[in-house]
Formats: sequence, structure tokens, C-alpha cells
Amino acid sequence: MSSLPVVRIVADLRSQVAAWRREGLRIGFVPTMGALHEGHLSLVRLARTRAERVVASVFVNPTQFGPNEDFDAYPRDEARDAALLAGAGCDLLFAPTVDEMYPAGASTTVTVAGVSEPLDGQARPGHFAGVATVVTKLLNQCAPDVAVFGEKDFQQLAVIRRLVRDLNLPVEILGGPTARAEDGLALSSRNAYLTDAERAVAPRLKAALDDVLGSLRAGGRVDVAEREAVAALLAAGFGPVDYVEARVPATLDRLGPGPVTGPVRVLAAARLGRTRLIDNIGD
Amino acid sequence: MSSLPVVRIVADLRSQVAAWRREGLRIGFVPTMGALHEGHLSLVRLARTRAERVVASVFVNPTQFGPNEDFDAYPRDEARDAALLAGAGCDLLFAPTVDEMYPAGASTTVTVAGVSEPLDGQARPGHFAGVATVVTKLLNQCAPDVAVFGEKDFQQLAVIRRLVRDLNLPVEILGGPTARAEDGLALSSRNAYLTDAERAVAPRLKAALDDVLGSLRAGGRVDVAEREAVAALLAAGFGPVDYVEARVPATLDRLGPGPVTGPVRVLAAARLGRTRLIDNIGD
Repeated sequence: MSSLPVVRIVADLRSQVAAWRREGLRIGFVPTMGALHEGHLSLVRLARTRAERVVASVFVNPTQFGPNEDFDAYPRDEARDAALLAGAGCDLLFAPTVDEMYPAGASTTVTVAGVSEPLDGQARPGHFAGVATVVTKLLNQCAPDVAVFGEKDFQQLAVIRRLVRDLNLPVEILGGPTARAEDGLALSSRNAYLTDAERAVAPRLKAALDDVLGSLRAGGRVDVAEREAVAALLAAGFGPVDYVEARVPATLDRLGPGPVTGPVRVLAAARLGRTRLIDNIGD
Repeated sequence: MSSLPVVRIVADLRSQVAAWRREGLRIGFVPTMGALHEGHLSLVRLARTRAERVVASVFVNPTQFGPNEDFDAYPRDEARDAALLAGAGCDLLFAPTVDEMYPAGASTTVTVAGVSEPLDGQARPGHFAGVATVVTKLLNQCAPDVAVFGEKDFQQLAVIRRLVRDLNLPVEILGGPTARAEDGLALSSRNAYLTDAERAVAPRLKAALDDVLGSLRAGGRVDVAEREAVAALLAAGFGPVDYVEARVPATLDRLGPGPVTGPVRVLAAARLGRTRLIDNIGD
């Protein structure tokens, strides 16, 4: 089945990438935490359209999980991930250990002010510093021409675009559209945590985002639309709702409370049972 | 005289470096804040022994100066710097503006815990975050094979070695020995601030370091040697003395107070009139 080559140390990753470079090939890169689904695979296929060789990484990064989050429970199945990646056109899997990524003495952190502060930055303290640091490392380890991240994690994508520009990393960042189930639920590795009853309710998150965006495009007020969406989610069985907010897409700055004319992104995070779901849409 | 090419934007730096790379040439890099002296030129010559092309940067980085420090007063003379660099075998000067380095919206910071915390980390809050961030940027902008930094800024060198390892920057870091005047004073752009009377006293800083190291190698206690050196500096006219400390070279961890057997670095920072001088030695 899968004959996908796997490397576990940075030196081996670099030597394979260097060999491709000597052949003049463009390199694409798709960093993941594994537990792959169609969303990840669509990013691999997107990378494939922009590069002759595609590297994917699978690394469940401990520094982006809070002390009470699901680092230990996070689903891990490398053989399944490798087979899926091979099928999607991936050429190499980089699957490092925690010690390879954070050797003894490691003490450097990348922080992004501004765009990483609201929303999940409030709800998950330290999360985006963990993301920014590991992504900086991964991009330097792989040194791709283009790296692809999902719009599903829209704030993460904005943080990564910011740090790549600010630190002058020589890589192009590409966002891939969110893959969804037929009922609208955004695909997520964490959907595996949902009970059948919760799974039936989960699509309401996307519906709430649609309602907010529809209301704003009909001239409604931002604060009213956000409040109504939170109420709808609570009524549907979500709770607590961390946020439902319409924001400026590039900066994630707040919009005024009144009618919106420019570009807008609506983002939400809410707990459903023991599972925290996030989603976002724009137009 | 100087025919040193100067580039002011990152894109031009990259295209020159890329052209050299296509010829298979190794690139050396010497980041500076200008106001060059023999110490900087020795770093350029050291880079030359390890690379076929040497880039130097001159950028007085505002983010590594505290609000009451000498950012505005820091000496600037690009024509003189360019002539000196050309004479030392430099091939290209990168001299960006503050706006080129920090465009509107820049908000990413690199921080290094541990090694950047004691000594100048205490005396100059925020200094090493400024250094770590700008050096990460410069290394990504130039993408050299080897970058050379002076041992004169020993803690800075340790911070840079740490961040390069932690962020997996694909570059070799080389330390160049401190250049000194005949009377032992470490060459520094800030020596230009000294009055004649202060210049006569300044070599006592190096003498105090020699006394500490000699005392430790003779079996003396660390705490006693440090205290005596501070007293000697104050008696000579320095003040305040920020620190005179013997530390573990690689980590800058504290040594025990008792006799020292392993490697040691002795570091000092003290004010002399309006000028803050730093120096360090090892054996």
C-alpha cells in the first residue's frame, strides 16, 4: 500500500529536500498534527499544484496545547496518515519526535503581537506562541518554496502570514479552503470526539456563522448579529461559547458595531460536550 | 576609493546573494551597527577565510535600545564604513532603512529565555529580544552559509547561537575574538564617547577581568574575586558597575561561589562617565 518515505530527523529531511533542489524541483510543504482527513488531503493536493515535490509533517506540538487541553488524547495513527498522504500525492513524511523538535536547552519563542491576541489568543493563552515557534522551526527545517495551511484555522493562518513577513522567511504561504461535511460541519480531527447526538447538533456552528454573515450583508449591526448567534448556539446545546465575532480578515481587528461594507470574516469557537469546535467563513 | 556596492532593500540583497549562489559561491555575513573599527574589520576578514563572498550589514537597530539609551547619539558615517569594509574584503553592504526592516504592522518578536536573562538582560530590559529579532530577520534576509559575530558581545553571541539552534536556522555561527587597543581596552564604537581622562581609566575594565580570572585560576573563590573587582572599578572612577561575574561560557549559568575547575567566562559592564562599557575574557 503506502510506500511513503518517512524521515524522523531534521538532517534527513534537509538532505532529501537538498537533493530535490539540486534537480531544480520546487518544494511544497503541508505541516499537520496528523489524524488526517479530507481537509488535510486537499491541502496536499493544493501544494501539488504549486510544487513538484510535496513534504507533509505530522507533529503533535506540545507547546501549543494548554495544561488542561487534549495533548495526550489527541488522535495519533501514523500508518493511516502515511497511507492517506501517499494517496494524495505527498512525496515525503516528516514525523519528528518531541526531543528532535525541542532538544534539551531549547528556550526560544516566537510571539506575534496584534493578530494573535484576540479570539483564540484569549481563549487559549500561549497557544499562538506555541504555533508561531513550531511553524518557524518547521519552515526553517524544510525550507520549502510554498507552504499550505488550512483556512479552517483562520487566525493561525493570519498569525503565520504575519510572522513569515516579519521574520523575512523566504517562503510563500498559501491558505486552503475549509473542507466540510455535506451538512456543513467543518472537517476537524477533533470531530472524532463527538458523540452521535453531538455530531447531529455540530453543523449549527456553521449555520450560526452563515446567519451572522447574512445579517451583516443585509445591513444588520455587528453587535446584534453576534449576540443572536451566541444565543442560538447556546439554545442548540453548545456551551460555553468562547466567541462569535465578525472581524477584518487580514488583521482580525474589530469592526465597528454598525453596518459593514468592507471585507469581513466571521469566526466562532464553542464547546459541544467535551469537544471544542472552531469554524469561520467569509465571502 | 571605495567601490563597495550598497543595497538598501531586502529584494536587492537576495537577488545578489542568489546570483552568487548560482555560481556555487559560499556566502559569509557580518551584521554590524556601523561606526566600524578594527574589531569589525577582523570579523570581515574572518568571514573571508570561510566564504568566497562577504556581505556586511550596517543597521542601527532601534528595538535593541532602551528608551534612555543612545539610539539617537549612536555614531553614523556610512561613507567611512563602506570604505573600511571594502578595504577589509567585503563584497556588498546591506544598509536598510528602519522602514525596510520594520514595515507598518510588524509585530513579531523572538525571545530567548535562559541565556538572555542575566547580566545585560537585567541591565538592559528588552535589549536581547531586540537583538534576537533583528538577527533572525537579517539571517533570513541574507541567507548566508556562515555569519560572524564578535566575542566582545559575548552574551549576544550566546543568545544568537541559542536562537539559531532553537529555530533551526540553516547557518553556521562563528565568534571572532575581541580586538583590543595596546593598553587592553576592547575596541568599541562607544569608546568614541570617552573623554581623554576617561580613556586613560578605561583599560582598568580589562585589568579587573584579568584579576578575576587570575584569582579563580589560583584557586580563589568566585564571590570574593567578583567583589574585589567591583571595588577596584569603583575606586578607579567607574560607576555604577552593572556586574562583574564569572559564568559558565556556553549557558552563562552561575558558577558556585567556591573554586572553579571547568571553563569560565568573566564578564563586566560598568559606566564610565556617560559611557557604558562592556568586556569579557576567558582562557
